Amino acid sequence: MSDATSNGTAVCQALLYPRSIALVGASDDVRKTGGRPLQFLRRSGFQGRVYPINPRRSEVQGEKAWPSLAALPEVPDHVFVLSPTETVVAAVEECAGLGVKLVTVLASGFSESGPEGAAREEALRTIARTSGMRILGPSSLGVVNPGNGLMLTANAAFAEPDVPRGNVFVASHSGSMLGALVSRGKARGMGFAGLVSVGSEVDLGIGEVCAATLDDPAIQGYVLFLESLRHGDAIQSFAREAARRGKPVVAYKLGRSSAAAEMAATHTGALAGEDDIADAFLKDLGVVRVEMLETLFEVFPLARKLPLGRATGQRVGVVTTTGGGAAMVVDQLGVRNVTVQPASADTVARLQAAGIPGHAGRVLDLTLAGTRYEVMKKALEILLDAPEFDMVVAVVGSSARFQPDLAVKPIIDSAGHAKPVLAMLVPDAPDALAQLTAAQVPCFRTPEGCADAIASVFRRRAPGVPATVRASNAQAQALSEAQAYEMLDAVGVTHAPAATFDIDRPPAALPFDYPVVAKVCSAKIPHKTEVGGVVLGIRDAHELAGAFATLQRNLRERAPGIDCRQVLVQPMRKGLAEVLVGFRVDPEAGPIVMLAAGGIWAEVMRDRSIRLAPVSIETAREMIAEVKMLKTVSGLRGKAKGDLEALARAIANLSQLALEPRLRVGEAEINPLMVMPEGEGVLAVDALVMQVPDAA
Amino acid sequence: MSDATSNGTAVCQALLYPRSIALVGASDDVRKTGGRPLQFLRRSGFQGRVYPINPRRSEVQGEKAWPSLAALPEVPDHVFVLSPTETVVAAVEECAGLGVKLVTVLASGFSESGPEGAAREEALRTIARTSGMRILGPSSLGVVNPGNGLMLTANAAFAEPDVPRGNVFVASHSGSMLGALVSRGKARGMGFAGLVSVGSEVDLGIGEVCAATLDDPAIQGYVLFLESLRHGDAIQSFAREAARRGKPVVAYKLGRSSAAAEMAATHTGALAGEDDIADAFLKDLGVVRVEMLETLFEVFPLARKLPLGRATGQRVGVVTTTGGGAAMVVDQLGVRNVTVQPASADTVARLQAAGIPGHAGRVLDLTLAGTRYEVMKKALEILLDAPEFDMVVAVVGSSARFQPDLAVKPIIDSAGHAKPVLAMLVPDAPDALAQLTAAQVPCFRTPEGCADAIASVFRRRAPGVPATVRASNAQAQALSEAQAYEMLDAVGVTHAPAATFDIDRPPAALPFDYPVVAKVCSAKIPHKTEVGGVVLGIRDAHELAGAFATLQRNLRERAPGIDCRQVLVQPMRKGLAEVLVGFRVDPEAGPIVMLAAGGIWAEVMRDRSIRLAPVSIETAREMIAEVKMLKTVSGLRGKAKGDLEALARAIANLSQLALEPRLRVGEAEINPLMVMPEGEGVLAVDALVMQVPDAA
Repeated sequence: MSDATSNGTAVCQALLYPRSIALVGASDDVRKTGGRPLQFLRRSGFQGRVYPINPRRSEVQGEKAWPSLAALPEVPDHVFVLSPTETVVAAVEECAGLGVKLVTVLASGFSESGPEGAAREEALRTIARTSGMRILGPSSLGVVNPGNGLMLTANAAFAEPDVPRGNVFVASHSGSMLGALVSRGKARGMGFAGLVSVGSEVDLGIGEVCAATLDDPAIQGYVLFLESLRHGDAIQSFAREAARRGKPVVAYKLGRSSAAAEMAATHTGALAGEDDIADAFLKDLGVVRVEMLETLFEVFPLARKLPLGRATGQRVGVVTTTGGGAAMVVDQLGVRNVTVQPASADTVARLQAAGIPGHAGRVLDLTLAGTRYEVMKKALEILLDAPEFDMVVAVVGSSARFQPDLAVKPIIDSAGHAKPVLAMLVPDAPDALAQLTAAQVPCFRTPEGCADAIASVFRRRAPGVPATVRASNAQAQALSEAQAYEMLDAVGVTHAPAATFDIDRPPAALPFDYPVVAKVCSAKIPHKTEVGGVVLGIRDAHELAGAFATLQRNLRERAPGIDCRQVLVQPMRKGLAEVLVGFRVDPEAGPIVMLAAGGIWAEVMRDRSIRLAPVSIETAREMIAEVKMLKTVSGLRGKAKGDLEALARAIANLSQLALEPRLRVGEAEINPLMVMPEGEGVLAVDALVMQVPDAA
Repeated sequence: MSDATSNGTAVCQALLYPRSIALVGASDDVRKTGGRPLQFLRRSGFQGRVYPINPRRSEVQGEKAWPSLAALPEVPDHVFVLSPTETVVAAVEECAGLGVKLVTVLASGFSESGPEGAAREEALRTIARTSGMRILGPSSLGVVNPGNGLMLTANAAFAEPDVPRGNVFVASHSGSMLGALVSRGKARGMGFAGLVSVGSEVDLGIGEVCAATLDDPAIQGYVLFLESLRHGDAIQSFAREAARRGKPVVAYKLGRSSAAAEMAATHTGALAGEDDIADAFLKDLGVVRVEMLETLFEVFPLARKLPLGRATGQRVGVVTTTGGGAAMVVDQLGVRNVTVQPASADTVARLQAAGIPGHAGRVLDLTLAGTRYEVMKKALEILLDAPEFDMVVAVVGSSARFQPDLAVKPIIDSAGHAKPVLAMLVPDAPDALAQLTAAQVPCFRTPEGCADAIASVFRRRAPGVPATVRASNAQAQALSEAQAYEMLDAVGVTHAPAATFDIDRPPAALPFDYPVVAKVCSAKIPHKTEVGGVVLGIRDAHELAGAFATLQRNLRERAPGIDCRQVLVQPMRKGLAEVLVGFRVDPEAGPIVMLAAGGIWAEVMRDRSIRLAPVSIETAREMIAEVKMLKTVSGLRGKAKGDLEALARAIANLSQLALEPRLRVGEAEINPLMVMPEGEGVLAVDALVMQVPDAA
């Protein structure tokens, strides 16, 4: 850990505070990509030493050009390789040989562009691994630190004068988005403590880059622009540590639709995982995942005011000077499942006592009271003090545009309260927004952005127990169903009783009642139905013998190469509902647990809930609440209630596989798990467990 | 119709072009609500005659004040009553007596505030009905016409200097939103041809106000801000006529969440209908219903470019100078079910021939080509000409901010193409946005707004055949199940065979096979199960006799007052899926037809599709595609396929009730309708029909 930290410090220093920089392939032409970094660095007055390297020129942009890295009077902290793809590996190798700490590679044309590119990428990876030098990129547009004028970037957007300084650090898969974030942040009064384009992450990824900056006191929060989930382990470590330190992390992640997921895959050569796994991953690590681009900025002051781990409720109060404006906010919160709380009788009485004509509805509408400082100030005071609210949103109408003193200033003057007060401005009111932003009041220019910010902050969760199981590169192998049940026994997931028999010797008596099901039982046949390996509805010993014969025949015909001698017999069990409960070690997200609707529902609806494993019983209960199909067994309209507590226990217990590296379970899928009537538990009636080979 | 038109012209004239105005209760104090209209009218240089009326003063704001309406030298075209609630009825009565054409009422305190207010409201309604004078309000903040300086409003927001002129007319339930729309429109370069706050619509509603302006050549499009669906008939007439004339109508409607629907109800005293009915209503009338506030403005140029009724596809092509930016747009379109189309091989070849390095993925990424005018211009030309695209979105990166000539200007220069070209600017780039707006190019500052606009335009539908059935105020009465089947026979919806018998005489033989179900059959027992009026699974004549006895006993015990002599016997039928198909005359939306998942699905999912009735078979097929549960019988993964064509026929046939006023059906609900295997049709196995009493 101390090694990692000191390495982190070194990376942070070379990344954001290099004393010396070399620009390999610096161009004399400022209109060319390779000419931009030198131009930008000079224009911004960067105080470190900058060495343009260009073997074909003695001067570049009026400065002395150096013929090679070796010719420099010192080993630069950070080398930006601007030269063409074919020259990159040699340049990076030279850097490593000289003892450079960090090299950033601009060129593209690596693994995303075919076998030759893949070989180049592998060469870079090898250099990084063997030399200890860190590599940013390829396809990195560079690094910017507005605090010290480090405009080490080929991104044309940094022609921007006065890149705003601030305390937010940005790491992005997309280099071109950095410019957009800077201009949009600037328009909203938000500045940056650093911006990094990580490119295709052959070595340093978003997680490691961000983690390296955690000790930097200039950095108080993070924005991540993610195309997909990559280097999940590093992001996990970073996010846990950021959560521990109370530094908010906000992410915009592409891939909510399948089309975009596919694009991200094409773009980077990475496999795009399922978005809902990435979503669970981010939220379970306390990351605020926003749905709208603008919320990336707008959510920060709110996330700061509600640090992770502080147990706060999610009850929102609304006060407004415009009924229509407030209704938009309430509506948008509602579609995101955030309910606006009406004031209590007590609060209404306090408002009345203060002479504030309160509206009887869901929000406190001050229209009748007129838009006045004293009214809004007093109303906010009473609402913020009211125990039924955890935060208060003030929706301000037309006065925000021309008379911010009337209803905007009282919001600013209430910002010191322990509970957050938020402002949503209904007209176009840039000046009032700027005042609110300067006062660090969470403020919003659209009802959608306001609702997205609140819902996004509510959806993040304080990180739980970290898993000890890691994703393995080794191929996992199926266990037989009988072995799978042993694994379920080991973690305490109940299943239907089962007995195994030799396929040649159907039993005369069974330890349970008929009707039963007979299934071929072999680690080599993970998908039994495909080989006709299941016979249902067996009513007596005679039929059982027939079933064994059928299974034998089917195996002979449809799985001739497989030697399967075992038959598993189980009583037929029907629950009130069928669900799928699964554990999986995702290559990026790590161990996850999933609850999904089974049967016909699973086919047409993505009715499922995912969390990082392990989960507590409480979290398992939340998951149950998220699967819509389970409402049918929740006691709705007098219908039979399923044993959802037993289901919660089963989910939590299965998820404990994340803490059992010795069991080596890569995947465990119970499908179906029968949810029996209340008090009768749950029963796995089939299970597939994949085990990773023992490394020892 | 010509009466309506001439009345419409008169309303439009008095509303937007009055030659003379009286302000009843005009205040001398410009800070007071009652002082604003005079101040605003003078400040804006309105050229008509304005008469302040104030019996307690000889002067108001330095002008002669008149003691009463009667004292005026002429009958004003439009009177704005600014005086307190209690004085309103008398003032309005006086207006009617004098022959005023239109009176607008500012005060609130009518039906939303209890019985006294309701009586006042009824009085206003009576005056309007008996005199022919039209009333706007109460709770109307007034009317604005930026074209002639008519700032006839008490809305403080119209202190705004230079309210932008344009050709869009705004009608809003919320008066306070008008100010927000003006400032936001102004910020986006959009102006207005009129803005009306309709208040609580005791007489003139949004539909009638808008319809009155349809002949005004200054008005080329409409923005509606709706709290709920009210005066649906008038909105329907207006929207159909606007569609016919190619004037786009864009609506933002509150009430997507239940909390907001409840608020709208409290606020206005109106009953809030279900949002998905209002949604179907708007879309079926060709109204662009946007989901985001900003899209209200952003969508207009696109809606204009794609007039209703022009048959265009929905295939979107994307070209970009920033991979990350385009991915956001693709993603946001994807979550709204709009698929971005990849270029055809032919188009790729044309791009290559033109020297444009095309990206192989879903969008044309020009990053490698560099951001240059010629490249973007040529790329747009090729994409717009390509037959696989119906519109092209150009996503522009950082260059939009400082060098709009590079990638923004070519978009403007391509705007003449028959197909729409849209611009989404990834950085903050207000100047480029202004240039694009001035050139009437649909342009967007967020990926969410861009996707919302496209999806909203795609979702509207050209209005179909208008219903001839109108909502009735008379109480509808249930028919018996046997009568209900006769009604289904009349419109051609198939049902399970049924025979009725006297409850004392169970039949020895049946015209169909066992098993059967026996149900009490009476118009007085619409909910049979509640009285134990259904016996299922009857296997023979003996059991049938027992069932009749059971029904008789249950009726005696649980419905003692009802004389029910008839039992309906039906064979038991089980389909592949159960759906609910319903027809209803909604009080606001008019006749609608609904298809919903039946059984367990209906309980936990709002899995349903609604359209204005009548619908064609084609539309019924679209409805089927929208109900997720029906995917389980669509032939998915080799499962049995249901007779979805027969279902489409049943939906279309039932919806024809909208064209049969003589049948007087107020509601017809088939629940369940069994979807049988392909080729075997659909079967209603229960139906409830409510009939409106014959007016004759």
